[in-house]
Amino acid sequence: MSDALVIFTPSGKRGRFAFGTPVLTAARQLGVDLDSVCGGRGICSKCQITPGVGEYSKHGVTVAPDALSDWNSVEQRYHDKRGLVAGRRLGCQAKVMGDVVIDVPPESQVHRQVVRKAATARAMTMDPATRLYFVEVQEPDMHEPSGDFERLAKALRAEWEIPEITAGLDVLRKLQPTLRDGKWRVTVALHKDHKAGPHRVLDIWPGLYEGGLYGLAIDLGSTTIAAHLCDLRTGEVVTSSGIMNPQIRFGEDLMSRVSYAMMNPGGDVEMTRAVREGMDALITAISEEVQVSPREIMEAVIVCNPVMHHLFLGIDPVELGQAPFALATSDAISLDIRELGMKAMNPAARGYLLPCIAGHVGADAAAVALSESPETSDDLVLVVDVGTNAEILLGDKRRVLACSSPTGPAFEGAQISSGQRAAPGAIEKIEIDPVTKEPRFRVIGCDLWSDEPGFDAATAQTGITGICGSGIIEAVAEMRMAGLVDASGLIGSAEQTGTWRNQPEGRTHAYLIHDATATGGPHITVTQGDIRAIQLAKSALYAGARLLMDEIGTDHVDRVVLAGAFGAHISSKHAMVLGMIPDALLVNVTSAGNAAGTGARMALCSIAARHAIEGTVRRIHKVETAIEPRFQEHFVNANALPHAVDTFPELSKIVTLPNVSFNTGGGESEGGRRRRRKG
Amino acid sequence: MSDALVIFTPSGKRGRFAFGTPVLTAARQLGVDLDSVCGGRGICSKCQITPGVGEYSKHGVTVAPDALSDWNSVEQRYHDKRGLVAGRRLGCQAKVMGDVVIDVPPESQVHRQVVRKAATARAMTMDPATRLYFVEVQEPDMHEPSGDFERLAKALRAEWEIPEITAGLDVLRKLQPTLRDGKWRVTVALHKDHKAGPHRVLDIWPGLYEGGLYGLAIDLGSTTIAAHLCDLRTGEVVTSSGIMNPQIRFGEDLMSRVSYAMMNPGGDVEMTRAVREGMDALITAISEEVQVSPREIMEAVIVCNPVMHHLFLGIDPVELGQAPFALATSDAISLDIRELGMKAMNPAARGYLLPCIAGHVGADAAAVALSESPETSDDLVLVVDVGTNAEILLGDKRRVLACSSPTGPAFEGAQISSGQRAAPGAIEKIEIDPVTKEPRFRVIGCDLWSDEPGFDAATAQTGITGICGSGIIEAVAEMRMAGLVDASGLIGSAEQTGTWRNQPEGRTHAYLIHDATATGGPHITVTQGDIRAIQLAKSALYAGARLLMDEIGTDHVDRVVLAGAFGAHISSKHAMVLGMIPDALLVNVTSAGNAAGTGARMALCSIAARHAIEGTVRRIHKVETAIEPRFQEHFVNANALPHAVDTFPELSKIVTLPNVSFNTGGGESEGGRRRRRKG
Repeated sequence: MSDALVIFTPSGKRGRFAFGTPVLTAARQLGVDLDSVCGGRGICSKCQITPGVGEYSKHGVTVAPDALSDWNSVEQRYHDKRGLVAGRRLGCQAKVMGDVVIDVPPESQVHRQVVRKAATARAMTMDPATRLYFVEVQEPDMHEPSGDFERLAKALRAEWEIPEITAGLDVLRKLQPTLRDGKWRVTVALHKDHKAGPHRVLDIWPGLYEGGLYGLAIDLGSTTIAAHLCDLRTGEVVTSSGIMNPQIRFGEDLMSRVSYAMMNPGGDVEMTRAVREGMDALITAISEEVQVSPREIMEAVIVCNPVMHHLFLGIDPVELGQAPFALATSDAISLDIRELGMKAMNPAARGYLLPCIAGHVGADAAAVALSESPETSDDLVLVVDVGTNAEILLGDKRRVLACSSPTGPAFEGAQISSGQRAAPGAIEKIEIDPVTKEPRFRVIGCDLWSDEPGFDAATAQTGITGICGSGIIEAVAEMRMAGLVDASGLIGSAEQTGTWRNQPEGRTHAYLIHDATATGGPHITVTQGDIRAIQLAKSALYAGARLLMDEIGTDHVDRVVLAGAFGAHISSKHAMVLGMIPDALLVNVTSAGNAAGTGARMALCSIAARHAIEGTVRRIHKVETAIEPRFQEHFVNANALPHAVDTFPELSKIVTLPNVSFNTGGGESEGGRRRRRKG
Repeated sequence: MSDALVIFTPSGKRGRFAFGTPVLTAARQLGVDLDSVCGGRGICSKCQITPGVGEYSKHGVTVAPDALSDWNSVEQRYHDKRGLVAGRRLGCQAKVMGDVVIDVPPESQVHRQVVRKAATARAMTMDPATRLYFVEVQEPDMHEPSGDFERLAKALRAEWEIPEITAGLDVLRKLQPTLRDGKWRVTVALHKDHKAGPHRVLDIWPGLYEGGLYGLAIDLGSTTIAAHLCDLRTGEVVTSSGIMNPQIRFGEDLMSRVSYAMMNPGGDVEMTRAVREGMDALITAISEEVQVSPREIMEAVIVCNPVMHHLFLGIDPVELGQAPFALATSDAISLDIRELGMKAMNPAARGYLLPCIAGHVGADAAAVALSESPETSDDLVLVVDVGTNAEILLGDKRRVLACSSPTGPAFEGAQISSGQRAAPGAIEKIEIDPVTKEPRFRVIGCDLWSDEPGFDAATAQTGITGICGSGIIEAVAEMRMAGLVDASGLIGSAEQTGTWRNQPEGRTHAYLIHDATATGGPHITVTQGDIRAIQLAKSALYAGARLLMDEIGTDHVDRVVLAGAFGAHISSKHAMVLGMIPDALLVNVTSAGNAAGTGARMALCSIAARHAIEGTVRRIHKVETAIEPRFQEHFVNANALPHAVDTFPELSKIVTLPNVSFNTGGGESEGGRRRRRKG
């Protein structure tokens, strides 16, 4: 017998190979996923494997201790220089000498799966556009006068089956010295566009490159820019960071920025410059934090809403401010980061923007769709990305719909009397005792409740400064559950509710949560105006969801996924008491965390994900809330807490809302309105 | 009968069409080459045709006067506004109403042939990479929220069968306002890369664009940069201009520039900047001269030698200065002109560099090959591009070889005692009477011979200042024919030659052509050193050609083509007397003028030409003169005038060279050498 049975785990792939066949060769012939950057030269160590020994009854094989060849000099040298974990071998050096079972550890797999730490624990497959290749290039020869670049292309074709390459002038400039420094052995970073065209050489290093290879997943929001620095070889998030979007000085929300561009000639150019500079500064800060050189950052995937998308690309967003909300371009965009004038990455770095779904439903919504993949769901799932604008997806494997709804900034604590950004000192959780009507709460930066010992000391530093977005939602829902607010949203008087905390404020009332005025602190209340702001926001959100449900022909959703950084902090129960989302089993209301960021990471780590989301977006049916007459009807009905018409059967199984009404005949909220008209 | 026979001339294509079929539609269905930019809307007038009337016995058809429909309102409006030549109709408006013969005039053909004005009068086919397309784009709709760019793509697909488009950020930025300005009718300039990939939108205009569409064919030489501004719609050269290459301050010839880069860190960067700035300045000057806006210039095709190629692209040429003369890249290059930091063209303008043949045989030689196409020749043709370096091609349809030979600058008048650039006042033609040994000559800027009446007055302005490159070749050849120089290149004394004009100069002699010292002018002579310089140059040229002849196994070529601006001024007979080129029938020695520039123009006007030259260059066999041992032998043998070994049978039929020898025993040129060693 001059050949042996080789079985690879975990794939289970098997085949017979002649004695002396390197394990890497056997793996390649069987299509086993075993990495190698140096092409079998024993220097990159990516192809490490663990041979088994003994009896494998499952496979019907007994592996002798000498089933693989002894260590050779290359392996020994590698081990002496860098050390091999005990039991590990280099797949390119160890040769098959008998029947053997070989395990490919995850770190030696090219397409290893990276498990997300989020609740849903969905796996991500590594299939990045940018990869490293080590090659040996033929030396020039006067009898065969091809260029160095053409010989590099030939080597990549021969060793890695890369059909064609191209390169920018920077790479061409460094090509000749690098080839000679490396004695004709070089590592190149190749970027494969997921659509077509030659591989692009992004960078080149002499010999085997052992530095980093990173990409950025960037969630470019109206308020914040968040970036995740990811290792393009492992998919791991090395670090994450964020900054305020410097465009805020031109307007808090999207429409005020569009107005700025309309009113000020060149205003869009200013905003474009601001966001690019901000992003560059963020990337620089991140690289410095983890000591990664700009040259090691090869790619960025950017997700954002349509206005940010246009401003980032340098397109005046004026058309997005008026019907029919025409995007300049909706498809996914691949470009050279250099085209944006950004400098904090490798000069040849590539950028990818996910496609926009519609004029109001951007690449961020596409990223949420990529992350949550409603198009593969068996049951009907509603995905809501809560922010200044809510992006709403509804669907299952048969059909996916999308819309956006202008919720305004109330959910983020803006336009709320005691509202503030989520920062230390902000009330983020609140409970109101249904009997005593007394509140207790927690603030960001402290794990104690306000009625627990030590709370005052623990919060002395930060103080208690206001209510953040998730806090105001809980507060209003708790007020409704404690009978302090009726279904119409009217706050009752002290007499009607039996608590001194409901204090008059003009012709309406406000509920006092915390009074620190004695110590120079704020007087934190929930006013009738706050309730109205939350009602407007949640009505818009609910009406959007309801519109999609109408389109699909249902009045029930099986699951609700709350996406967005904010979604992670909303209590499902409170959201449902408010009627923010349709009725559903509480256990079926989950948070997807920063789903847009996750979608960006998936697109960064996988060409297949880019194909997938481009296909999905083409198939998503867009519903434009602004022109749907039923939107207004849904909006009005959704004003009540939780709803004027729709019943909430699942909610009523766990919460009984007090049947109170504080309308004293003059028209419930009319008082408030009249007051405002006079004031 | 409800259909009619339609015959198009000059193609002869014919078919039957239903009454009422527009002529343009009939032409498209038959594949007749009839232009249209507006897609049949009667506004671009590119589809003008001339219907015939009467009997066409050749086609067996009689055409009635009403064979085409009457003028309609669109045609009438066009005629009122701009005027139609009598007899012409708009092909998109005129409808077939009976059997008809329709002539498509050349200016209505897309692929019209442009006849070169040069002697060879070879036709050039228009097939440019950049063309204009007029389209009507669907307006945006909230129910179908695709981007404006995606709807532009859809319109181009539907109206022009353009499968896919892409665009840079500048175009995306102006897309929305342009579409709205043009009321959803726009003209786009699309660039089709000849290899693959989507069409690229270079620019966009509202409505039907009626401005210019230009490209540049640029011959980037070591000494001069010449540019031809060409109309990309007609192929016509609008204007040509040139400047000195600003790199000259870093070194006169290529090797001195390579040395400058080697000796001075950053020297290559300086030279790159200089050449790009120079080219930008040249382009600006050209545009201003003919009042073309930079935005109208969409493309540039550049041909140059390998060192210029690398310096222009920003690649250090150091490897080209030493064996094995490795090019950084040899294939053709397509790039955004913006990558070069050049600003005098449309910001989206594209550049194309022809492929280099080898480390010493550049894209300029490729352009000569494209222009002269030796690969299609039935007989064996030698193409010589004479300059500081001679590029030499030899071949026929079976096989083409190439090499370069370091002739040095003598042929351009440099290193010649009375040499100067070709400028007014320079002697460009000379004849020496074989009996009297008296010279007569002509200078640049004056059509009279020096012995004709009025010559002195006519040249009073410029003076007689020196000898240019073609002048020195004629002078040496005339001296050889008049018996003033022997076969070894030795100038005889006054006694040996019988003319006082052969005057001693040190231990050698010089022939006096013109003495203007009395009036403060120069003393113009041909010295022994001048003869030696010409001998070195012509030996290198001949040895290179001979090496290629060896490789092909022949001692005879059928035709010789002298290319290069200089080639146009060399007299075939004199070149052969000198033994610059192999013996051939004088009528078979022709000048191709600026063949490199012609090749650049061909590549500018035709995608097919780019494919052709890339294929040809891959098939050309390169011979490296530096490593061929026989080169030295050929070089030594070629030192004699015309040659020490090879016979020149064709030459001897028309010229009998005096059998003189001025070697007086001390070793002919030894005297000179010894003198130099001592000096």
